[in-house]
Amino acid sequence: MSDLPRSVRITEEGPREGFQIATVPVPTADKIALIDALSATGVSRIQVASFVSPKRVPGWADADAVVAGFTPRAGVAYTALWFNPQGLQRALAFKDRLSVYGSITVAASEAFSLRNLNRDRAGQLAAMRENVAEHLAAGVAVNRVSVQAAFGCNFQGEITPAQAVGAVADAMALAAGTGCAIERISLADTMGWANPLLVERVVGEVRSRWPGQAVSLHLHDTRGLGIANALAGLRMGVAEYDAAVGGAGGCPFAGHPGAPGNIATEELVLLCEEMGIATGVDVDALIAAGHLAEKILGRTLPSALLRGGSLTAFRAKARAA
Amino acid sequence: MSDLPRSVRITEEGPREGFQIATVPVPTADKIALIDALSATGVSRIQVASFVSPKRVPGWADADAVVAGFTPRAGVAYTALWFNPQGLQRALAFKDRLSVYGSITVAASEAFSLRNLNRDRAGQLAAMRENVAEHLAAGVAVNRVSVQAAFGCNFQGEITPAQAVGAVADAMALAAGTGCAIERISLADTMGWANPLLVERVVGEVRSRWPGQAVSLHLHDTRGLGIANALAGLRMGVAEYDAAVGGAGGCPFAGHPGAPGNIATEELVLLCEEMGIATGVDVDALIAAGHLAEKILGRTLPSALLRGGSLTAFRAKARAA
Repeated sequence: MSDLPRSVRITEEGPREGFQIATVPVPTADKIALIDALSATGVSRIQVASFVSPKRVPGWADADAVVAGFTPRAGVAYTALWFNPQGLQRALAFKDRLSVYGSITVAASEAFSLRNLNRDRAGQLAAMRENVAEHLAAGVAVNRVSVQAAFGCNFQGEITPAQAVGAVADAMALAAGTGCAIERISLADTMGWANPLLVERVVGEVRSRWPGQAVSLHLHDTRGLGIANALAGLRMGVAEYDAAVGGAGGCPFAGHPGAPGNIATEELVLLCEEMGIATGVDVDALIAAGHLAEKILGRTLPSALLRGGSLTAFRAKARAA
Repeated sequence: MSDLPRSVRITEEGPREGFQIATVPVPTADKIALIDALSATGVSRIQVASFVSPKRVPGWADADAVVAGFTPRAGVAYTALWFNPQGLQRALAFKDRLSVYGSITVAASEAFSLRNLNRDRAGQLAAMRENVAEHLAAGVAVNRVSVQAAFGCNFQGEITPAQAVGAVADAMALAAGTGCAIERISLADTMGWANPLLVERVVGEVRSRWPGQAVSLHLHDTRGLGIANALAGLRMGVAEYDAAVGGAGGCPFAGHPGAPGNIATEELVLLCEEMGIATGVDVDALIAAGHLAEKILGRTLPSALLRGGSLTAFRAKARAA
């Protein structure tokens, strides 16, 4: 296991992912309370909101109020999501508290592109070309490539490593043509199709073709393989992961309502810390934030660790005995 | 990943594990219905009942009726659990339908031995010596060594690889002294303390010390790392796993009620099959059995795959499109 990283950087996406599919209206103050609780856990980045159309994602109609209301903590970067110039402008209004940068986002699946991005892959690349121009005009760097449905698709079926790499290549070519200095490539298992061998293959091909790029994994636990897929990523040296406290979230357009969403941050932290990989996160504080998220969302989240509890108290009791 | 086995043998423990901690009384006919449904999934072994004291485990007061009632299917081995001569005699009454063999069961944790086995480790070895004699006197082979709490303990804390190997060695010495030909060593993460590196270390030491033995893993998903730990086992070439449909079960004496129990069989099957490792199991039939188990137990089981659904239908739809 010589490729295991010494430390990983986790982006906590629980607020953005969890509230976008909340089945009950969540008060703005509760969203802020969860973000503030997460700020105290030691995670290095938190995605706090989505600047999207309230018609499309009603759960984020109060994105501006949420971003205005949380208490930034030194050492934590706060990010948000947007898909159009209006969203970018809303984010820029908070550039004192948000880390604002652009992404070139594409899907490896034509069918998912049509459903989730409302355009085919060619149309999405054209839209991204405009998007990049808008960011650069606003003085915002575009430094990230993000590929959705990189491991499979509920609407298209298998996505081969060549298709995933092809989607990255399209986005990298667009970046090169527009003078963007890309720093990381994010691969998303949007619908839970990945398995550990596939993660190794796709990550391996991406790393060997773009050795200067950091690779980031955005994994969903739709079918129970999420943490095993993260382990495969760790074995490939991947040191950046998205995750959501409690396993909140899931894509509203993925076609399996009720299925678990992102891998649970606390389970990823436990996996890493038990293997000696530093996360900087206090797993018990994160578990407490997960219980807060359950209270706010009014439902039991899928994380096993929220039920089983960490090893900390058991270890302390055993030492004291 | 060159050590991945080509195929694995899964022992389905959902009936035995799930019903021992059922919070509602489960009718005997429902237990039989679940066993019969599992028989049709392709699993090679099913642990159907526990011949234990009804006072200690009321959920198995009807073990004899359950074993008498299910419909054996050719090619499936049916096993049961017992801890004393009375239990062995109850099992032997069904030797036409049960695969009856003995195990030398010990715990790697002194504290867990006292709680779960009612004896310290030395006392358990003495009891196992008697137990072996009883089995041999009844003409029943003792061919398996089983170590509980092999990766950690809620009551004792860390279990080192040396302690786990020491527990195996104690049991193997007892086997040698009593003329038992042991065929497999089962390592149980009874309370969900394992992590992938620890699995690799313990399995590696056991394999190198007893190279002729098959190793079997009994993993719990208490803290969300169960499937990642199974992946670590697969990478070490381990080809035998216990699992429970839906992730039913959990040790009633482990000290964390409500936590997930065994790894979910259907998630283990998906992990293997997606990586090209044959299980012989129809994952969709198993998911259907999981939904039946939820109906019978009157609760949602922890398996993510029961919520997310398999990839089969999505693949078929994609091919047809």
